[in-house]
Amino acid sequence: MSPPEVRAAVSNGIPPPVLDLPYPDGAEVITSNILKLIELAPNPRVKFIFQNLVTKLHEFVNETRVTPEEWMTAIEFLTRTGQTCTPLRQEFILLSDVLGVSALVDALNNPPVGAATESSVLGPFFTEDAPDVPLGESIASEGKGEYLYVEGQVRTTSGAPIPGAVIETWETDDKGFYDTQYADRVVADCRGRLVTDKDGKYGYRAIVPVPYPIPGDGPVGDLLLALRRHNIRPNHLHMMIDAPGFRKLTTALYPEGDAYLPSDPVFGVKKSLVVKLVEINDEAEARKRGFSKGTKFKLLTFDFTLLNDAEAAAGRAERAK
Amino acid sequence: MSPPEVRAAVSNGIPPPVLDLPYPDGAEVITSNILKLIELAPNPRVKFIFQNLVTKLHEFVNETRVTPEEWMTAIEFLTRTGQTCTPLRQEFILLSDVLGVSALVDALNNPPVGAATESSVLGPFFTEDAPDVPLGESIASEGKGEYLYVEGQVRTTSGAPIPGAVIETWETDDKGFYDTQYADRVVADCRGRLVTDKDGKYGYRAIVPVPYPIPGDGPVGDLLLALRRHNIRPNHLHMMIDAPGFRKLTTALYPEGDAYLPSDPVFGVKKSLVVKLVEINDEAEARKRGFSKGTKFKLLTFDFTLLNDAEAAAGRAERAK
Repeated sequence: MSPPEVRAAVSNGIPPPVLDLPYPDGAEVITSNILKLIELAPNPRVKFIFQNLVTKLHEFVNETRVTPEEWMTAIEFLTRTGQTCTPLRQEFILLSDVLGVSALVDALNNPPVGAATESSVLGPFFTEDAPDVPLGESIASEGKGEYLYVEGQVRTTSGAPIPGAVIETWETDDKGFYDTQYADRVVADCRGRLVTDKDGKYGYRAIVPVPYPIPGDGPVGDLLLALRRHNIRPNHLHMMIDAPGFRKLTTALYPEGDAYLPSDPVFGVKKSLVVKLVEINDEAEARKRGFSKGTKFKLLTFDFTLLNDAEAAAGRAERAK
Repeated sequence: MSPPEVRAAVSNGIPPPVLDLPYPDGAEVITSNILKLIELAPNPRVKFIFQNLVTKLHEFVNETRVTPEEWMTAIEFLTRTGQTCTPLRQEFILLSDVLGVSALVDALNNPPVGAATESSVLGPFFTEDAPDVPLGESIASEGKGEYLYVEGQVRTTSGAPIPGAVIETWETDDKGFYDTQYADRVVADCRGRLVTDKDGKYGYRAIVPVPYPIPGDGPVGDLLLALRRHNIRPNHLHMMIDAPGFRKLTTALYPEGDAYLPSDPVFGVKKSLVVKLVEINDEAEARKRGFSKGTKFKLLTFDFTLLNDAEAAAGRAERAK
């Protein structure tokens, strides 16, 4: 008569270790015992990671002297973070983002290599259903925001054009929302897929993106409040560029002048990705680019430099040293 | 037309900080920027804890050079840990337990004070519905396991008896299950509430507890497998003792000889809590203690020493230095 509740509790079949493990008569014995146990992990990378993780965790507890009540608050916070996750929302990634960990992992794994364009955080708003947009056309429907024209070239580190590079680009509307945040979304808007021409050049109509808040109704929102940190990401235009033989680049461009740029809550902004929008007030220029109303628009010019696969591999090898 | 999805994303009203935050052109700038932001936390304890936590977390990422794929594995592990929690199961506490963190927090907050009996982990199997058991009677129904008699005294640090102390005690049956793990549980079994007599003495019939596995079907079970650690807690008898004017003691007694004692997966065993069971094979002794079948039983004798409130406060003050 073994009810369902107890079936979960079965031996994993691993015997007690042959190790000198004294009974913990002090805090330091607990730490040294678990480190001895981790020595037995069969995978060297798992062993290395958990030796470091447990050492840091125990240092944290020792140095801060967290109380049982504080530890229970942490347990409840982490539990709530896990339970806030849905197929459409990843609160643990958001936690990693606001603690600078996602940006740090990215910085260490994708360090700047020569003149190659730097990466930035992907974020949770990329979709697979962006429409194909011909060069010179618009990714945003009329009325979604202030006119912006984006143009430039995609090239190799030696300056040669990369024709046929696929650019995925997406952004908020002027209310600070991505199309996916509207429950009544039918088709994609403020996003598109373009292909560079024979000279590696691209150009498209868009709108000026605006700053927007990251979700504040979960545990991460509570944490930012406790730390008295704002939750507004500075305005940015996402760009993901892929061409055969080159490393796929996930990045974003951040128009300068936004007060939230230096304190981006997810630490996504890099100096080289802060761009200038030039205001153009010239009817002929506006018409030439296909803007149908008024004479004013902003112009963003940016050239992307991709690493080829050999350069990317050399960069990884250099990093591994 | 603001759909539900976007309502969650609103500004928390906190302005951008007045701080010198350079754009991160290297990993170390990310770390120094977040530490500068944490300086603004209004609560000094929150500030202290997060300065330490973020420093350790970033050291971990720097020293292990976790890859984006490894980091995503960690995110998924934590998400699954949160989503495995139910009102009857706390997988994050289990994670904290197997990483030695719960035991470390307990060791630092409840250090040994003089001759006072040491604490041990409460575990998830305490219930409020234990029956009142008169001294000399049994906490276990017949047939639940090998006979055990537990007796001793509850006293002050100066050796004076503590009459009227309330003892809550609970244990597994001989299959390694607590009563609450059976779906068909109607009343409590293998648990009871006793009160010490005028000499501070207690005694009751019980059964010899056996080792049992902690749940292995969740992420913590997977982690123990990856570390090649067994998931068997050594045999133990839970005891919680409360008397007016004294610090409540939550502890457990661990019969010696169990192969899993030194490598308890939750690091709950302390040397002073390992006890000897004396085998008695004497019909008169067995009858005297009320055992109805056979002549053999095991005898566990243990005296508990409680700190009074003043001693406990002095201990906390000492620790705070």
